[in-house]
Amino acid sequence: MIVDPALLAMRARATFASDHRVAALVRPGSVTQVQACMRIAASQRIPVYPVSSGRNWGYGSSLPASDGNAIIDLSRMNAILEINPRLAYATIEPGVTQRQLMQALQDITPALWLDATGSSPDCSIIGNTVERGFGHTPYGDHFGHACALQVVLPDGRLVETGFGQFPGAAATPVYRWGVGPAIDGLFTQSNLGIVTRMTVWLMPEPAYFQAFFLRARESALEPMVDALRTLRLEGSLRSSIHLVNAFKVISSDGRFPWGLADGTGRLPEEATRQLIARWGCQAWNGSGALYGSRAQVAASRRRVLELLRPVATELRFLDDRTIGIAGRLRTPYKWFTGVDLAQAMALVKPVYELMKGIPTSRMLASTYWRKREIPDEFDPDRDRCGLIWVNAVAPADPVQVRRMVTIVETVFRKHPFEPAMSMTLRTERAVDNIISITYDRDRDGEDERAMACHDELLSALMDEGFYPYRLGVQSMALAAQRRDPSARELIDRLKHALDPHGTLAPGRYAG
Amino acid sequence: MIVDPALLAMRARATFASDHRVAALVRPGSVTQVQACMRIAASQRIPVYPVSSGRNWGYGSSLPASDGNAIIDLSRMNAILEINPRLAYATIEPGVTQRQLMQALQDITPALWLDATGSSPDCSIIGNTVERGFGHTPYGDHFGHACALQVVLPDGRLVETGFGQFPGAAATPVYRWGVGPAIDGLFTQSNLGIVTRMTVWLMPEPAYFQAFFLRARESALEPMVDALRTLRLEGSLRSSIHLVNAFKVISSDGRFPWGLADGTGRLPEEATRQLIARWGCQAWNGSGALYGSRAQVAASRRRVLELLRPVATELRFLDDRTIGIAGRLRTPYKWFTGVDLAQAMALVKPVYELMKGIPTSRMLASTYWRKREIPDEFDPDRDRCGLIWVNAVAPADPVQVRRMVTIVETVFRKHPFEPAMSMTLRTERAVDNIISITYDRDRDGEDERAMACHDELLSALMDEGFYPYRLGVQSMALAAQRRDPSARELIDRLKHALDPHGTLAPGRYAG
Repeated sequence: MIVDPALLAMRARATFASDHRVAALVRPGSVTQVQACMRIAASQRIPVYPVSSGRNWGYGSSLPASDGNAIIDLSRMNAILEINPRLAYATIEPGVTQRQLMQALQDITPALWLDATGSSPDCSIIGNTVERGFGHTPYGDHFGHACALQVVLPDGRLVETGFGQFPGAAATPVYRWGVGPAIDGLFTQSNLGIVTRMTVWLMPEPAYFQAFFLRARESALEPMVDALRTLRLEGSLRSSIHLVNAFKVISSDGRFPWGLADGTGRLPEEATRQLIARWGCQAWNGSGALYGSRAQVAASRRRVLELLRPVATELRFLDDRTIGIAGRLRTPYKWFTGVDLAQAMALVKPVYELMKGIPTSRMLASTYWRKREIPDEFDPDRDRCGLIWVNAVAPADPVQVRRMVTIVETVFRKHPFEPAMSMTLRTERAVDNIISITYDRDRDGEDERAMACHDELLSALMDEGFYPYRLGVQSMALAAQRRDPSARELIDRLKHALDPHGTLAPGRYAG
Repeated sequence: MIVDPALLAMRARATFASDHRVAALVRPGSVTQVQACMRIAASQRIPVYPVSSGRNWGYGSSLPASDGNAIIDLSRMNAILEINPRLAYATIEPGVTQRQLMQALQDITPALWLDATGSSPDCSIIGNTVERGFGHTPYGDHFGHACALQVVLPDGRLVETGFGQFPGAAATPVYRWGVGPAIDGLFTQSNLGIVTRMTVWLMPEPAYFQAFFLRARESALEPMVDALRTLRLEGSLRSSIHLVNAFKVISSDGRFPWGLADGTGRLPEEATRQLIARWGCQAWNGSGALYGSRAQVAASRRRVLELLRPVATELRFLDDRTIGIAGRLRTPYKWFTGVDLAQAMALVKPVYELMKGIPTSRMLASTYWRKREIPDEFDPDRDRCGLIWVNAVAPADPVQVRRMVTIVETVFRKHPFEPAMSMTLRTERAVDNIISITYDRDRDGEDERAMACHDELLSALMDEGFYPYRLGVQSMALAAQRRDPSARELIDRLKHALDPHGTLAPGRYAG
């Protein structure tokens, strides 16, 4: 157990201000040790907070949801217990990172892809999945592609979900529901248990892969939502489609144009225009991909062209061959005409690779947007990058999506930050909007200003019916108080049944 | 409240013997009345058992899981509360049947398909979904395509799942997880609450639809499992693939060849051979379908041909045009050469339509297999058809599937029934085997013989790791006792937290 104040203070760091302190840190190396931790915590009434890799940036890093918790750091439990090439799954522990699993797949069975998030390659796969995070391939709904959880309950008991509850069940890693009540959802976005093992399904590498990138004017948002929903619903697109606004693009390399700054803290309009021109981006910038045989991809591409060409100002397809050429030549390739190829490629390539399930740390550069310097190795906590994420879900309906976007723009007008939005058609019917409030924690008063922006934005979105799919520790109290009293009472009852002393992650996803 | 003994006895009927009696019957017409029922049940300690349509044939019809329950019949609550054509969903009450929703869709928005089970058109959609039943289109995993449950808890409180817990949440009907612990799984295959409302997602009618039917020899089972898993994993097939054995085909019209019976109760070998010849079937008979634009279907069909032609003795594709021709001409169409076209079409057509989400009562004919007469309108409970379903899940791995099949065949050799199997590649990685024990309840001692076969079969399958995806009231005790003690203890704790007096459906999915 670590109790050194300096080390503990490091664990209480996040990309925003918090007064939660960390009381201790334990790093169990096995499920038995996790069980022992939980038993001690329960008997001694010590609040404990599990983290996997602690890289929940923008949502609290490894920061507990309440003050004075002991962190249970699961990163030592990093065994890949099984990779099954035939049935296309891997069974892993919470310390297994995206990079580690990808490496193992490349060594053992390169024909299987993982689905990666846009966060660091060193993020925990289980950590992201129990937060119901998402990625970019057809396996992008992480919790929807995982099963067979092993869970340590707050009293130290060990349970399994799905068929794992039955000795020797052959279908445990391949069939999620098992038989009887489906309990696995209880252990996502909650404080009811610690997931110590999980099976994640893997996607077989398709015979052919083609990505597309599009640009569209502001007014095209509505028809684009209609077109994308149609393509998703009919199955022509089987993976997430991303639609980011211009602020998201121009802040992606983390270089605020300090030379053009006007002292307001906000990006001046003229500078915005210049950056948009340099990046060659539009109000909305989309990406998606097609997976299948060459003939399947060609058939789906035809539908994509049919529906998206009328609404986009540009629509380009890239595959391994064309991206290879662009990468090698670094000359004004047709796709990038008029824009800085090296810079555009530096953004396109990681997005392209993410759609193939390859994790990248490139996206983290945007957390340095308001910093004066960008290090070679990103560590937003250490470097006092300010990043607060707010997210909201809307139906994939043009009127609703526009309403959601307008709320975001309206709120940001009152705050000295850029409303960078990344919208994802996560399913056939729902759009997630991930909004980042990016700032410099070293600037006086900025922590407070950013959190004020967060509070107002989250409240304004919820007021209009756009609730978050996921909460950071900064948002949990605000969101939980909106929960219907009878649902809150039910969750309290479940919590009390599983954790009568309330020692596991108090305040996590609860008021 | 109905307490007339004759009416109650009717509700205690099933397609197998049971000594559970029904104490009373109530038919609430609203969620408020369901809440009142639950409050009375809890305060008076009356065990209550909810049924939707009561057509859970082969799994207990409307029979409670323990003796002396009052049935809460939800069939009067049959409102279709919303059909959303743009976002492709319907919000319904538990009394809404497959037929009713299909009719409503045809009236309002025929471009949306429901996903139907092979059971009666008069089955409840919610009833099937909370049992985690499945159908035949890409939306075949019913619980996987439903969200936003409204649930009456055993104490009469009303809760919603997903975003329904938050007032005015726009994404409630389109995004399943909501925010915070995902609790909806608790209310499937359980006795923790009564689902009084649900949203089901609907599939947009594809531009083109093509079904395929295949036949294969016994020895082709293994390569076929490999081929079908590959096609599912790569996305060439997006819906369930069914593989039924010869017994399933020849019993499908419910006409046991009594003229050839030898008094053993079992179908004689010679009669089996004759029936197989007349039906033109093989050891394994498969069906599946392709959905998409013409080009997408053509591309996927190419993959289906590539992988299935080498393993099948026959592989034929049908679309609306060809099936129309076959239906009109009733002459030896190429596909049916040498077999009774009318008979084959009578089987093929409902399977074809099921793959388009059109419910049929045709499949119920097989429950009359051992009866001497088949009525015009099927009612297996009334007609004392014997039907016990046993099911088991295996990984989509040839060795495992073969092992599962061999267990079934071995057990049936000791019992006077035909091992009719219907295997479904329900997901990319898992195969469900639905085995029917079909008999005549009017034959002396047959109820006991059939249940002995059930018990031995279920135990033998579980001994080898093949656990059921779903339980009838006849199987709950046998399966529940296999559950790991710590998982059982967790479920008991959840049950106690939600239903301290244990009045809701005692014994349901529990030991």
